[in-house]
Amino acid sequence: MDFFYTNLIYLIPVFGLVGIAVMAIKAAWVVKQDAGDGDMAQLAGYIADGAMAFLRAEWKILSYFVVIAGLLLAYSGTTVATSSPVIAISFVVGAFLSAFAGFLGMRIATKANVRTTQAARTSLAQALKVSFTGGTVMGLGVAGLAIIGLGSLFIVFYTIYVKNTGGDVNGDAMAKALDVLAGFSLGAESIALFARVGGGIYTKAADVGADLVGKVEAGIPEDDVRNPATIADNVGDNVGDVAGMGADLFGSYVATMLATMVLGREIVSHDSFGGIAPVLLPMVIAGLGLIFSIVGAAFVKISKETDSVQRALNIGNWASIILTAIATFFLVNWMLPADIFHMKRDELGGGMLKGGSIEFTRGDVFGAIVVGLVVGTLMSMITEYYTAMGKRPVLGIIRQSSTGHATNIIAGLAVGMESTVLPILVLASGIYGSYHFAGLYGVAIAAAGMMATTAMQLSIDAFGPIADNAGGIAEMSRLPEEVRHRTDNLDAVGNTTAATGKGFAIASAALTSLALFAAFVGVAGIEHIDIYKADVLAGLFVGGMIPFIFSALAISAVGRAAMAMVEEVRRQFREIPGIMEYKAKPEYEKCVAISTKASIREMVAPGLIALITPIIVGFIFGPEVLGGVLAGVTVSGVLMGIFQSNAGGAWDNAKKSFEKGVEINGEMYYKKSEPHKASVTGDTVGDPFKDTSGPSMNILIKLMSIVSLVIAPHLQKDVSSSPRLQREIHTQSMIAPVTKPVNKI
Amino acid sequence: MDFFYTNLIYLIPVFGLVGIAVMAIKAAWVVKQDAGDGDMAQLAGYIADGAMAFLRAEWKILSYFVVIAGLLLAYSGTTVATSSPVIAISFVVGAFLSAFAGFLGMRIATKANVRTTQAARTSLAQALKVSFTGGTVMGLGVAGLAIIGLGSLFIVFYTIYVKNTGGDVNGDAMAKALDVLAGFSLGAESIALFARVGGGIYTKAADVGADLVGKVEAGIPEDDVRNPATIADNVGDNVGDVAGMGADLFGSYVATMLATMVLGREIVSHDSFGGIAPVLLPMVIAGLGLIFSIVGAAFVKISKETDSVQRALNIGNWASIILTAIATFFLVNWMLPADIFHMKRDELGGGMLKGGSIEFTRGDVFGAIVVGLVVGTLMSMITEYYTAMGKRPVLGIIRQSSTGHATNIIAGLAVGMESTVLPILVLASGIYGSYHFAGLYGVAIAAAGMMATTAMQLSIDAFGPIADNAGGIAEMSRLPEEVRHRTDNLDAVGNTTAATGKGFAIASAALTSLALFAAFVGVAGIEHIDIYKADVLAGLFVGGMIPFIFSALAISAVGRAAMAMVEEVRRQFREIPGIMEYKAKPEYEKCVAISTKASIREMVAPGLIALITPIIVGFIFGPEVLGGVLAGVTVSGVLMGIFQSNAGGAWDNAKKSFEKGVEINGEMYYKKSEPHKASVTGDTVGDPFKDTSGPSMNILIKLMSIVSLVIAPHLQKDVSSSPRLQREIHTQSMIAPVTKPVNKI
Repeated sequence: MDFFYTNLIYLIPVFGLVGIAVMAIKAAWVVKQDAGDGDMAQLAGYIADGAMAFLRAEWKILSYFVVIAGLLLAYSGTTVATSSPVIAISFVVGAFLSAFAGFLGMRIATKANVRTTQAARTSLAQALKVSFTGGTVMGLGVAGLAIIGLGSLFIVFYTIYVKNTGGDVNGDAMAKALDVLAGFSLGAESIALFARVGGGIYTKAADVGADLVGKVEAGIPEDDVRNPATIADNVGDNVGDVAGMGADLFGSYVATMLATMVLGREIVSHDSFGGIAPVLLPMVIAGLGLIFSIVGAAFVKISKETDSVQRALNIGNWASIILTAIATFFLVNWMLPADIFHMKRDELGGGMLKGGSIEFTRGDVFGAIVVGLVVGTLMSMITEYYTAMGKRPVLGIIRQSSTGHATNIIAGLAVGMESTVLPILVLASGIYGSYHFAGLYGVAIAAAGMMATTAMQLSIDAFGPIADNAGGIAEMSRLPEEVRHRTDNLDAVGNTTAATGKGFAIASAALTSLALFAAFVGVAGIEHIDIYKADVLAGLFVGGMIPFIFSALAISAVGRAAMAMVEEVRRQFREIPGIMEYKAKPEYEKCVAISTKASIREMVAPGLIALITPIIVGFIFGPEVLGGVLAGVTVSGVLMGIFQSNAGGAWDNAKKSFEKGVEINGEMYYKKSEPHKASVTGDTVGDPFKDTSGPSMNILIKLMSIVSLVIAPHLQKDVSSSPRLQREIHTQSMIAPVTKPVNKI
Repeated sequence: MDFFYTNLIYLIPVFGLVGIAVMAIKAAWVVKQDAGDGDMAQLAGYIADGAMAFLRAEWKILSYFVVIAGLLLAYSGTTVATSSPVIAISFVVGAFLSAFAGFLGMRIATKANVRTTQAARTSLAQALKVSFTGGTVMGLGVAGLAIIGLGSLFIVFYTIYVKNTGGDVNGDAMAKALDVLAGFSLGAESIALFARVGGGIYTKAADVGADLVGKVEAGIPEDDVRNPATIADNVGDNVGDVAGMGADLFGSYVATMLATMVLGREIVSHDSFGGIAPVLLPMVIAGLGLIFSIVGAAFVKISKETDSVQRALNIGNWASIILTAIATFFLVNWMLPADIFHMKRDELGGGMLKGGSIEFTRGDVFGAIVVGLVVGTLMSMITEYYTAMGKRPVLGIIRQSSTGHATNIIAGLAVGMESTVLPILVLASGIYGSYHFAGLYGVAIAAAGMMATTAMQLSIDAFGPIADNAGGIAEMSRLPEEVRHRTDNLDAVGNTTAATGKGFAIASAALTSLALFAAFVGVAGIEHIDIYKADVLAGLFVGGMIPFIFSALAISAVGRAAMAMVEEVRRQFREIPGIMEYKAKPEYEKCVAISTKASIREMVAPGLIALITPIIVGFIFGPEVLGGVLAGVTVSGVLMGIFQSNAGGAWDNAKKSFEKGVEINGEMYYKKSEPHKASVTGDTVGDPFKDTSGPSMNILIKLMSIVSLVIAPHLQKDVSSSPRLQREIHTQSMIAPVTKPVNKI
């Protein structure tokens, strides 16, 4: 055991290396599979080329951003704090690893799609194997690279700032190490902004643009190879659902670990790891979760055509969660001392526990982790209920489609708003419960527990768009009925996992933001965030408003970007003769470039709001007002995220229900019926809701929190922009009791 | 002057009596006007009967509610505090006066409508005079009865609890007097819940129901007398826009005065009014505002046909605001002592100023009032920009209508979300600015200043639906072109005032809630509302969610109630022969009853949420968590209110723009074009947004705040639902500094 006590810190990146090794094996296996015949391979090639074109264009812009932001971080660092130039390195590494994980995942996803189609010619079991293995490459890549990056940087910074200086593991030395480590999380979340928000705008711009010109103007079917935007549309699925979701969860995964580590520093622990067990714990839990995600993935298989694909995924998911939970129980008991912890916020300056401490046992820490696992599971289940076919919410939208477009929209908006209730109650109970167990460290470790099996969650998420693309390729290549039946089966399951994955992503963003929020308050060294103060309350209002303007910008951006796409497609039809006769290949990459450029241009405004607001508020009004803004943006962002994602998901499945036929007041309605047309309107409104503005709320709330955490050490605690407030402070001690006035009239 | 120093308190109700006297003269004048010939009078009679039928049905339910709630208040009062049985009387008086003001206003509005039509046969000037005078009856009735009620009850409670006991005007005696006075505000706001939420459901249920069966199924035009629901539809305009808005503003008006009085108690003032000048000030300002509203109303007139009606209303509005502001300047200088105030929250226990005081001059108090006036004006102007024809937001929706229903909806939702930005910045600046001037008393008195000219605001608001009804009657009676041209002119202005009125109502609700929030914290005696505490943060999330479920319920209720209306209309068409041939009169009152019953049944669930949530949270989790819930509900409610009201208003005017024809990409589009059809979808979605769920946010946030204020004295400060939290408190003083662990690996 002594070996582990001394070297655990060095073993953490090894977990990540194991994940990457397994990922490499799986990626190689996918690539080795049969990619099918000429037609299929060519279609898949277009999609893969389009995806790479997107990545190249994105990286070009990203590299400018990373260099500028890195220089700003380094420069501002030298003026306000000695440690901060290093933070720029941390930032660049985080940005690079997140982008690299996205590259790996999308690269394999765009190979797995056509190989899934080909496998579906043999059996459903084989098709599931190829598509799910493709998904695990994204899952393992994200988790593996995150652990390697965070773990390695922690070793470096811990060695430099704490070990080599003999600094206090509960004091400033460790605070400095974690402060520069926060740059890694900032880098990761910045890439997520581009991937999730930009990707969300991209995919819906391509989707809407392709439909408007192709289906409406040119009269060719959806997914027709003659449409220059059709490849962009298919690329969009990968960009949004694979890379976007991956970057989102990469960010949450890293940020929860980081926030728990920051709060863990404040715990005085008499453990065998030199007192840093509470800091190491979240990374080790993540490492175990990665290992058990690999184990769980092995359970995802079926043998007969009639076996349930959903059940196979569920078994794999539950296996990884339960095994991780059991392993975590033993881990906590091994790493943490049996006796009670003391969190001594008073000596560290600030926090709600000023003048006091909080005690908890290692059992309490495990309790908080269980709370996190339960919250994540419930959030996914609730999301599924509100967006699933055949359940009350979607059935209500179907029924209200019979009286027209407007009532369909009203029903969907009402479902979206209603769907916030249970998730918020679960979340509020989760905050209350995890705090009950282990204070603010409990809230953070609950988030870390929930995120432990990120590799598995993301594998299941990425399986969806692969299966979706596989179905599209099968349809475009006119493969036999039984092949399309198999891919449809996988695609249907993918729709469900997409919905539950969104619930998980929102829950993770919410808990991550809360953990970051708690870490921010600790690092900023403020005592309260008192909304009874007028300026903090004003901050709460401003924060609450930001998700509304962010959503408005994202939604409008889709409209504008779709228009740019429409013009490019019209130009190609006009200027390239022979497209309609299959004699000339459309310039797919031009559409991809248009969509990419438009999406990246359109996300500048919302991105700047998220990045700059905390800096302006923090430096002008101080950390307490910034805390008010963060609370406002988190509450409002979670609500708007759930509202928009679930409304969009419900509209989508209401529309899909018409494909099999639905019964309204005793009559059957199918595709092309009036109620179906109304449901298509709802689905189109829901598209930017569920794939652009809704999921971008995750990034917004996390990014604003992580920016705040990074600037927290440099904020002045007593900011008084108003002379009157200074006078108040001045007069606090000098006012003598006043004589009571006569109280008669 | 001595007379005034001694008797000012008794003069306050006199302001109200003056208002009621002028109202009576104006009402008599309206009734005296020519009600036109047979057809017109009959139509107006149906509408007036329908309105009374609604009131009777509403009052029946209301009387149960008032008796039960009154008994609960009285009973719970005897168990927790000696003063509280009296609060039940206060509650009943508030409920009665609010209902009575609604009765008076609607009664005259339903007489003024047809008389406006008749006057329009003569001249535009005369038509404006009749319709605006009808509106002033509502305005003066609301303001007059509110001042009489609040002023008289204050005299009674002040005499009983303070004067006769020789109690401290800054201490418990005055606190008790104001505590029971809060019942008046609770009663008024409860009626507002029924009038605004129920009325909102009513008017849209009737509107949608009448359209679906009449226009779609029976093929008869809108506003056709053969449609049994058409009267309910016209009644709905009065119910929603006259009575609903009136009750809303009655509630805000009373609540701002009350909250300022509660905070004024905490000010130690060496004035000539026995130290209660800060408590009396808001009521006297309201009295002056009422007088100058009467003066301002005299400016609302035109002489020529070509004169601008909007300009006449603006002149009247500005006259009353400016005169009130000038008078308030002298009033503040006369009532408040020149020297500095001391607000001594420490002795009163609690508040952000614990251990300190805040100083401000009478000039600062006037500054805060000016802030309130500016906030109200800006909010109205911003609302107008976002909902007016010819401005960028509405033009954007029109342009996006050209690509279909879905893009129209997306554009409207984006406009609604974007429209939250400026109002929130204005509101946040207002909070910051008024607090800067005079602390929390400043925030409250700013709200009181803004509400001072409520009589004028409401007169202009109520003018709108009267003109709208007048136009409808003119159209149904097929009066000459020039008459309808005049009523159209008035109606167009009414649409603008409806939009600005909504902006004012939201601003007033927001500032009122903040004032009540500040008063709640003071009365509850808590020191902070610290969102860094896990339970308070959980409360913030739950509070933020409530406007979403409230909106979802309100929106769904409109759908269900409209369906009930549809069935009743179908039944009448089936069972009453001769309706379609004008041979039999439809049973209008049955539709009115259906709509009323449905609306009142449907508002029980949202109403209970608003009433019961604060009670449950307050007694189980304590006042600080309740403070978190209130902050959450206020921020989220203001945002959702602005979002929904402005989206609805913008959709409405986008649709209206097609009536005159709009140009999209160089082509002209009119009614019945495809873009127009898309704009109708947006308008239908916007109907419940702008007339049901949006405005009901005002009531939600005020009602939850006032319930909290009423229960505040009975809440235990140190609620510990969790044994762990008790342990924390216990261990705060007993933990010794811990020895630092070895920090080597």
